[in-house]
Amino acid sequence: MPQLTARGISVEILASISKPLVEELADICKCGTDNFTVDCLNVVSVFDGQVCETFPFIEVAWFERGSEARDRIAEAITRYVRSVGILELEIAFKVYREDGYYVGGVPCG
Amino acid sequence: MPQLTARGISVEILASISKPLVEELADICKCGTDNFTVDCLNVVSVFDGQVCETFPFIEVAWFERGSEARDRIAEAITRYVRSVGILELEIAFKVYREDGYYVGGVPCG
Amino acid sequence: MPQLTARGISVEILASISKPLVEELADICKCGTDNFTVDCLNVVSVFDGQVCETFPFIEVAWFERGSEARDRIAEAITRYVRSVGILELEIAFKVYREDGYYVGGVPCG
Repeated sequence: MPQLTARGISVEILASISKPLVEELADICKCGTDNFTVDCLNVVSVFDGQVCETFPFIEVAWFERGSEARDRIAEAITRYVRSVGILELEIAFKVYREDGYYVGGVPCG
Repeated sequence: MPQLTARGISVEILASISKPLVEELADICKCGTDNFTVDCLNVVSVFDGQVCETFPFIEVAWFERGSEARDRIAEAITRYVRSVGILELEIAFKVYREDGYYVGGVPCG
Repeated sequence: MPQLTARGISVEILASISKPLVEELADICKCGTDNFTVDCLNVVSVFDGQVCETFPFIEVAWFERGSEARDRIAEAITRYVRSVGILELEIAFKVYREDGYYVGGVPCG
């Protein structure tokens, strides 16, 4: 955690931005880069009766850290994704509660 | 948004109902059809020690619009999925907060 | 429901522990084993510019049943996953609201 789960962005593109992006996010969250995971979700999208391109979307699962960190994270992700030519991106934060998150069976809160 | 993410329903079936379904959902939500995404998630399910069929399930990610819209959306999705012969379906709404949702790096709330 | 969605754990391993694990979880939740689903999510993870192994993670979607049941579920899942040699595992509970969950188009709350 935080855990980034993307759809509509290829593995190659995600990999190409992963190192500097995660370094910047770790700096914002004041934690190590190895706290982050970046996963590319395998989905097939449909629209108007046909298979279509998947809209670029990243869900960030985290513990709530407030709007300043959230805004900066969203800005950084958007900037890196734009830098590789993907101009449209939506990002949603999914909040996990500390007492509902377990590491090795032990709750975080 | 709203974003429908399905498992246990094939891409072909989802595609076949996507056009009239999304039109009806857009009417309920009073927004354009292009606000919707319909994604088919690639999962493998297990039960009793073996791979099994995935239970048909759709998660609807949205901003909270109240129980009337929610009930009507669930009813419409259930009706379209039944119309293609899938009689069992569970639907869950996942609520994103407007201030935790970013379009082009800008929060929605 | 509850619905377990795993990443970073192979289908074979999940299948091999699914029967006794779900029986124990059903006992904790005082419900039938057929209320549970166990799905293996297809993701590709990236780190430091490259594809990497996916960190073992299970999201448990459920209706809130309190910390005692939650702790016991997390303990049981962690124990079964460790028993097959996966020593690191994180688990997050995602809470669905009863009135936002529909079975056959009918809300649960």
